[in-house]
Amino acid sequence: MIGATGTVGQRLVRRLHDHPWFRLTALAASSRSTGKVYGEAVHWLLPTALPGSVSDVVVRDVHEIDDCDIAFSALGSSTAREVEPLLARRGLMVVSNASALRMHPQVPLLIPEVNPDHLEMLDHQDFGSGGIVTNPNCSTVGLALSLKPLADAFGIEAVQVTTLQAISGAGHPGVPSLDILGNTLPLIPGEEEKLETEPQKLLGSISGGIFSPAPFSVSAQANRVPVVDGHLISVSVKLGRGASVEEARSVIEDFRSPVADLHLPSAPRRPVVAADDGSRPQPKLDADREDGMTVTIGRIRSCPVFDLRYVALVHNTERGAAGAAVLNAELLAATGRIGGFHQSDADPGSDALSCTSGG
Amino acid sequence: MIGATGTVGQRLVRRLHDHPWFRLTALAASSRSTGKVYGEAVHWLLPTALPGSVSDVVVRDVHEIDDCDIAFSALGSSTAREVEPLLARRGLMVVSNASALRMHPQVPLLIPEVNPDHLEMLDHQDFGSGGIVTNPNCSTVGLALSLKPLADAFGIEAVQVTTLQAISGAGHPGVPSLDILGNTLPLIPGEEEKLETEPQKLLGSISGGIFSPAPFSVSAQANRVPVVDGHLISVSVKLGRGASVEEARSVIEDFRSPVADLHLPSAPRRPVVAADDGSRPQPKLDADREDGMTVTIGRIRSCPVFDLRYVALVHNTERGAAGAAVLNAELLAATGRIGGFHQSDADPGSDALSCTSGG
Amino acid sequence: MIGATGTVGQRLVRRLHDHPWFRLTALAASSRSTGKVYGEAVHWLLPTALPGSVSDVVVRDVHEIDDCDIAFSALGSSTAREVEPLLARRGLMVVSNASALRMHPQVPLLIPEVNPDHLEMLDHQDFGSGGIVTNPNCSTVGLALSLKPLADAFGIEAVQVTTLQAISGAGHPGVPSLDILGNTLPLIPGEEEKLETEPQKLLGSISGGIFSPAPFSVSAQANRVPVVDGHLISVSVKLGRGASVEEARSVIEDFRSPVADLHLPSAPRRPVVAADDGSRPQPKLDADREDGMTVTIGRIRSCPVFDLRYVALVHNTERGAAGAAVLNAELLAATGRIGGFHQSDADPGSDALSCTSGG
Amino acid sequence: MIGATGTVGQRLVRRLHDHPWFRLTALAASSRSTGKVYGEAVHWLLPTALPGSVSDVVVRDVHEIDDCDIAFSALGSSTAREVEPLLARRGLMVVSNASALRMHPQVPLLIPEVNPDHLEMLDHQDFGSGGIVTNPNCSTVGLALSLKPLADAFGIEAVQVTTLQAISGAGHPGVPSLDILGNTLPLIPGEEEKLETEPQKLLGSISGGIFSPAPFSVSAQANRVPVVDGHLISVSVKLGRGASVEEARSVIEDFRSPVADLHLPSAPRRPVVAADDGSRPQPKLDADREDGMTVTIGRIRSCPVFDLRYVALVHNTERGAAGAAVLNAELLAATGRIGGFHQSDADPGSDALSCTSGG
Repeated sequence: MIGATGTVGQRLVRRLHDHPWFRLTALAASSRSTGKVYGEAVHWLLPTALPGSVSDVVVRDVHEIDDCDIAFSALGSSTAREVEPLLARRGLMVVSNASALRMHPQVPLLIPEVNPDHLEMLDHQDFGSGGIVTNPNCSTVGLALSLKPLADAFGIEAVQVTTLQAISGAGHPGVPSLDILGNTLPLIPGEEEKLETEPQKLLGSISGGIFSPAPFSVSAQANRVPVVDGHLISVSVKLGRGASVEEARSVIEDFRSPVADLHLPSAPRRPVVAADDGSRPQPKLDADREDGMTVTIGRIRSCPVFDLRYVALVHNTERGAAGAAVLNAELLAATGRIGGFHQSDADPGSDALSCTSGG
Repeated sequence: MIGATGTVGQRLVRRLHDHPWFRLTALAASSRSTGKVYGEAVHWLLPTALPGSVSDVVVRDVHEIDDCDIAFSALGSSTAREVEPLLARRGLMVVSNASALRMHPQVPLLIPEVNPDHLEMLDHQDFGSGGIVTNPNCSTVGLALSLKPLADAFGIEAVQVTTLQAISGAGHPGVPSLDILGNTLPLIPGEEEKLETEPQKLLGSISGGIFSPAPFSVSAQANRVPVVDGHLISVSVKLGRGASVEEARSVIEDFRSPVADLHLPSAPRRPVVAADDGSRPQPKLDADREDGMTVTIGRIRSCPVFDLRYVALVHNTERGAAGAAVLNAELLAATGRIGGFHQSDADPGSDALSCTSGG
Repeated sequence: MIGATGTVGQRLVRRLHDHPWFRLTALAASSRSTGKVYGEAVHWLLPTALPGSVSDVVVRDVHEIDDCDIAFSALGSSTAREVEPLLARRGLMVVSNASALRMHPQVPLLIPEVNPDHLEMLDHQDFGSGGIVTNPNCSTVGLALSLKPLADAFGIEAVQVTTLQAISGAGHPGVPSLDILGNTLPLIPGEEEKLETEPQKLLGSISGGIFSPAPFSVSAQANRVPVVDGHLISVSVKLGRGASVEEARSVIEDFRSPVADLHLPSAPRRPVVAADDGSRPQPKLDADREDGMTVTIGRIRSCPVFDLRYVALVHNTERGAAGAAVLNAELLAATGRIGGFHQSDADPGSDALSCTSGG
Repeated sequence: MIGATGTVGQRLVRRLHDHPWFRLTALAASSRSTGKVYGEAVHWLLPTALPGSVSDVVVRDVHEIDDCDIAFSALGSSTAREVEPLLARRGLMVVSNASALRMHPQVPLLIPEVNPDHLEMLDHQDFGSGGIVTNPNCSTVGLALSLKPLADAFGIEAVQVTTLQAISGAGHPGVPSLDILGNTLPLIPGEEEKLETEPQKLLGSISGGIFSPAPFSVSAQANRVPVVDGHLISVSVKLGRGASVEEARSVIEDFRSPVADLHLPSAPRRPVVAADDGSRPQPKLDADREDGMTVTIGRIRSCPVFDLRYVALVHNTERGAAGAAVLNAELLAATGRIGGFHQSDADPGSDALSCTSGG
């Protein structure tokens, strides 16, 4: 795994060290960490203990690694832009949480429950024998999963979104406590651009190896708040055709994953859930739902300006990062897109897949 | 003063105990407090010390009080609806922060810098020899002050607003710490309705004793965040006519109070200020500007869905409550609408005006 | 269960609704809640969902209940003082988290790993056919568990303790957010008295139905801090005989529960653990260890004034309240002190024991 | 001023830019900042605006500066150890907040209200024509000011102290928000050692150029809490002779600065104040008392283990750092220890003294 010591890297370790399909074979991080054992290189931030079997793994340099099938990347954007294509050309399937290549015209930006058909783009990719698949920005995941049922049922013309984002999204050391304790920050550099472009790619179509983004516009305002995990997202939507609050609630409640039949190990039973309680969702109470993989939607109501309003909550470092990447890798494995892995291998303990790393 | 022991009442005490025009002559509160001295009745929450001269004042029942000219009301809504008209009929000028009568067809909803002409409605009011003037909801004050220059210059057709509101807005004991520490709450009961109706009255016109609300719609989503003072407001505006970001910034920076010549003691030098720093406004750094009376506006930029976006910050218990009421009273005094007060009396120490109380 | 809607009551529900030995048969709460189903009566504060099977249970009045064997009490102190003896006289075994009767000369103040022999007092109790057993104050549990190995090995002469206590200890609504956000409170009424008297009873002896408190003095200073769960406790100890830091660390690490052989379902594998990392324990990272039942001890070092210093962390609403009570009930059951329960019944699903409720 | 961009440096700027005696003539900081104007080099963290006159000052390298009389140092410890003696040898009076030379046998560790006689050591100092004076660690200031009246009246034999320290003490970026939000940290590296050695020097005596530390021992346990400003300190004291709580309270309330007659501009009217309210002091409500220069003492009560207990609060970046340094410089000026400054010059606007900088 690449970028293994960061906040997302730690959650990848948590998810992969006892994964039923994958086996964690190598960890890579920046030169500050290489050569140390992981337990010393990492400032472990999770309340669950660092798995002992991982603690003693020596952190390697990404360029030394070629003995595995999948490379999970939790790299920073500029490093990812350089390293991820190299790994793909070495034959690895890169499953990336980095933003660098999300909007690349040959790289799928993937949420299994939203656009599994976009995997087709791998057939048109030009990264040698490997490939690259990305998951969206942490806030985008929550927004896109909440928009998907509405887009399918009513169409979407415009979206206004304001986020209240948790500090874990900035990693560690990340946001200084003097800046955020008892405060809110109205700027998260680069965040709004992602929220304003990624949803259209996710909800867009693909044909002949060319993406066509969905034709709606998004206006995003991103704020940082003193919350540890869980991005809260206020959304107003202009629909393609009118819909009552009840209809909207119904399509959300009835939404099921199009790849439910694959029984991906990290897939939640329900990717989106409508909250009954009008004071929900709340990060503290709802972010961890289904191990952080379910987006909770609340306060669905009509909008005096557009058609519909609601509040969505996404666990930013699980469904919005580590869990998103692992789920993408599971989809790749289950659809035969990872060399040497056959779905019949998917019994616990199988070592058909391994996990590599990089920068 | 009515409702003197609450969080807004405390800030009224702070502003009035050494006010250059007004003299604090009586304090009233609920039956739980009457008969006690203020210092014992109040759970003082401000870092500035409780003024000794006020600490020993005996808290009275509102119904016993008639020996003053202005009644500042920091009452809860249901009590205000009953008590404020009674006080007005007793001949007092009621200056209220309560929401009860804000939308009453004869009661001015007043921000001196926005709609001072609305005072004309006092000539049509039917509360006996007294009168009632209200200030808006804490968030509305910030929104309306930010919209005013834009409305004057470009017209406004629609507004999408999402708030990140401080806990002091809920008073004391207010929000339980278990609910808000490390959390955000996507519901503040009653708040969105105020944000969706008050701005139109404030920016509307008055003619022949009848208010005509401004013809734009507002969609508001209100959130509670773990911040002590300062509501942050994300705004997207559809203008009547197109405007560049530079034009918008100019009209905001050039905005001056229409009643600046009255030199109201609590009026800020500048009611709205455009922040230079793209990471501002922030509650911790900007809420206290000009003793909490200035609204800071930042991140003015174009909107992919509407025309313009920005972030506004208002000190919710000063410009949004206590300071708003005192400023309204100052406008009433300076325009000769309070009996026995002439502007030439306005030297420090004058006791031409006193301040009463109620429930 | 009595007091089922409070913060401790909720955690009791969480622990009991699928307990291997006990069956939750009734819930009781104050008159505000009786007659409602639990799901409506409770303001559920836990991130784990309210169990559906409990949500529909109708909350009853404590005085109507006699159809069970154990009464878990999470009552307030004054109600507990009145209700708990009544329940005991009705034949129930009252397992109480309330402070009312902790220092009663006939009531065991019990931590299974510290003083299981104190159960002998039940033979001398005079509450009719039932009985009453209490667990200590939340901070005391952490202090007593940390002192126990030291007391056994070296003796204890005096203790200075300062606590940093989480807000969940005050229940809900509990501490107003305006009082604690970005603040610390140097007073928790009644807390220091408990810390200064309960440890001596816990570490004392019992003979012929009479408690002899351990002959050391405790000085406690209790502070409230903006943390959700987990009391941090700074301790300085004057030992009966000198001990090196290494010796002290050894006796802590080697400490095992004297009732380990009973395999109580809620007992942690290790009741106290010495942290390796000098920056631990921390509430956020360590409180949940072993489902909140393990006390973590860190920074064991010599003291320039006394002999030994360290920092202990206890999950205040688990090991310090709900988990403490359930563990006490398990010890009662396993030692044959609950009518109709035989240890051979202790297979999952057994309904030999049920759980009642009260006020 | 040296180290001008840090959190303490910013508060020094705030205090010095309009100081009645001193004139801020130069700012110095690390190589990262030199050459930039201060307004760009600094991440300004104070709610009061950065003074315009200071914003445009170009930050210099400390080694270029010799055109002033006093060098205020807010340097880190290792840089201070090297730079401060150099500046002194260049003839400057170094007034330092750094810890490097506090325990140096020729350097006064000074609190004007505690040990003004220690300035005598300047006559024995061997730093060329200049000199070095230091103020204590932020927590030590609060502890020493609270101990001083007790030491004078009753003598002190031993002290147990546990601190709850604010995040501003770690500077900016300082403590990562992920580490401290909703958490407490039981370790502040280096802090306890200072608390265990500095009080004895402060309360010790000086004779013939040799310090004799006061003969008592201190045991300190330091914790970090999510508070912005204000260290809360729980203290237990073993006195030289017994004293009732009333006597202790009296000597604290009656304590007056031994240099009150000098009317130092930054000296508080009362350096220590006993709080009446048993729930005080609290950082949020009491830290700012007298511009952050007064230590508030509360909960004075007897101790079951030692003689006396209380809680003290000190504003860590004012009385504990920037204000401490400025007050020390004022004492130096008023006692004729700064070249070219005569007390008769002490009218506002005097430029007899200037302020230099360094690293």
